[in-house]
Amino acid sequence: MPDLVRTGISLERGLLDRFDRAIRKKGYQNRSEAIRDLVRDYAVAEDIEEDRTVVGSLTVVYDHHRPRLSEHLIDIQHHSRGKVIAATHVHLDESNCLEVIIIKGRSSEVRRVADQILSLRGVKHGKLVLTTQGKGLE
Amino acid sequence: MPDLVRTGISLERGLLDRFDRAIRKKGYQNRSEAIRDLVRDYAVAEDIEEDRTVVGSLTVVYDHHRPRLSEHLIDIQHHSRGKVIAATHVHLDESNCLEVIIIKGRSSEVRRVADQILSLRGVKHGKLVLTTQGKGLE
Amino acid sequence: MPDLVRTGISLERGLLDRFDRAIRKKGYQNRSEAIRDLVRDYAVAEDIEEDRTVVGSLTVVYDHHRPRLSEHLIDIQHHSRGKVIAATHVHLDESNCLEVIIIKGRSSEVRRVADQILSLRGVKHGKLVLTTQGKGLE
Amino acid sequence: MPDLVRTGISLERGLLDRFDRAIRKKGYQNRSEAIRDLVRDYAVAEDIEEDRTVVGSLTVVYDHHRPRLSEHLIDIQHHSRGKVIAATHVHLDESNCLEVIIIKGRSSEVRRVADQILSLRGVKHGKLVLTTQGKGLE
Repeated sequence: MPDLVRTGISLERGLLDRFDRAIRKKGYQNRSEAIRDLVRDYAVAEDIEEDRTVVGSLTVVYDHHRPRLSEHLIDIQHHSRGKVIAATHVHLDESNCLEVIIIKGRSSEVRRVADQILSLRGVKHGKLVLTTQGKGLE
Repeated sequence: MPDLVRTGISLERGLLDRFDRAIRKKGYQNRSEAIRDLVRDYAVAEDIEEDRTVVGSLTVVYDHHRPRLSEHLIDIQHHSRGKVIAATHVHLDESNCLEVIIIKGRSSEVRRVADQILSLRGVKHGKLVLTTQGKGLE
Repeated sequence: MPDLVRTGISLERGLLDRFDRAIRKKGYQNRSEAIRDLVRDYAVAEDIEEDRTVVGSLTVVYDHHRPRLSEHLIDIQHHSRGKVIAATHVHLDESNCLEVIIIKGRSSEVRRVADQILSLRGVKHGKLVLTTQGKGLE
Repeated sequence: MPDLVRTGISLERGLLDRFDRAIRKKGYQNRSEAIRDLVRDYAVAEDIEEDRTVVGSLTVVYDHHRPRLSEHLIDIQHHSRGKVIAATHVHLDESNCLEVIIIKGRSSEVRRVADQILSLRGVKHGKLVLTTQGKGLE
């Protein structure tokens, strides 16, 4: 069972009203959850900055007709063994594929694998996001 | 067969040398492919800005023990029918899950679905990336 | 005198410890001030998204030897009268100048002025940040 | 006189048309200048990543009535001697000030000075941008 503690802030009523309106629009039921999300995001940003272990999700769009591209993609993923956890493939249309590749490692390692994939000829577009392993973020 | 055209730029030798070193480090074999990637990225950024149809990939980390969270996640995905294309689930450890949800729609619609999911209680962290459907980006 | 209210959150001790370490490294003396900064940043992000009045600060680097560039820069600033508040000029070396142009207006208007300046031939690099007018952010 | 070289890329006509429309909207007269800007931006991003000397422009908004804040701001700027080049102050209203502080140094050093200032109590909002010294970016 997580060990919960309580912390508080005082701030100007007008600012709090603006914050409440802004989070309601995003779908939050509850101010406490919205602030907790900001705190978690700050902690995750620091994990990334300090090169701790994170999980990356790389989204790429490519043309599967491009000769040898699929082999290259598989190759890189296998050579990063122990890092690439999973990959999902979506057929966007008859020639375009979207693939999401989930990579675990220090943030610099995850970025390196992503750079290798993004620089492949035939990969039209792609973006990496870094997130947390989830531990200690209740 | 795509209709290829050629375009050129002139720039200072020192700048080109720096660019060549920078792209080599990222894994590019070839300057032309690196510049093409910059051009594609610019075109995709404009699709997003102009609220055209894009593909979003939302990565979230959550605790699957959290009561009712899984139902909420499935609910939102079903109510966004025609928009959520696929979802991949990865078990990070005994309690933490990572899920990648692939959403297609105008960029504002994709953002709305993502906001609904990110504001759920129990979703610890998450990030959305927007990319292209792939058409017309050779 | 600002009308202060107090709000609280409960969160897991481990997360709070990580947050405290992270903010100390950034120089915060005090957790409350760090959380308040996150709340303010969220409110400002919404002002930008909702196209309310914000203040932009555009930083550009250019070569002042480039013919007619200085006139173009001044021209755009004057035609955006009522929007450009101030500009500061720094001589980086014998040919390179850095200029910071402070612009007030709806976020879309500020972006338009910035785009005009950034696309001028001779402007080597530049970036825009959007911030608040400061009211109601105690 | 800069030593200019020419480089070319081939790309699909549809993509080039989209790029041309997108840059025209941003105010570019000329495709070559737009591509050059992308190349420069890539080179600057690498300078930042590799912790080379860059120029930062930090924009902060604060309430000048806040006791001791102005002294703290001046103090930090003086202790970063050799790094802070200039500062511009704008009076937004009777209590809110906007200040732009221009800092030169390795990207990690510039970030450290910015973090110190942003974490001061009374600084309501602020953002740092990093740009180039301008050399070798024709």
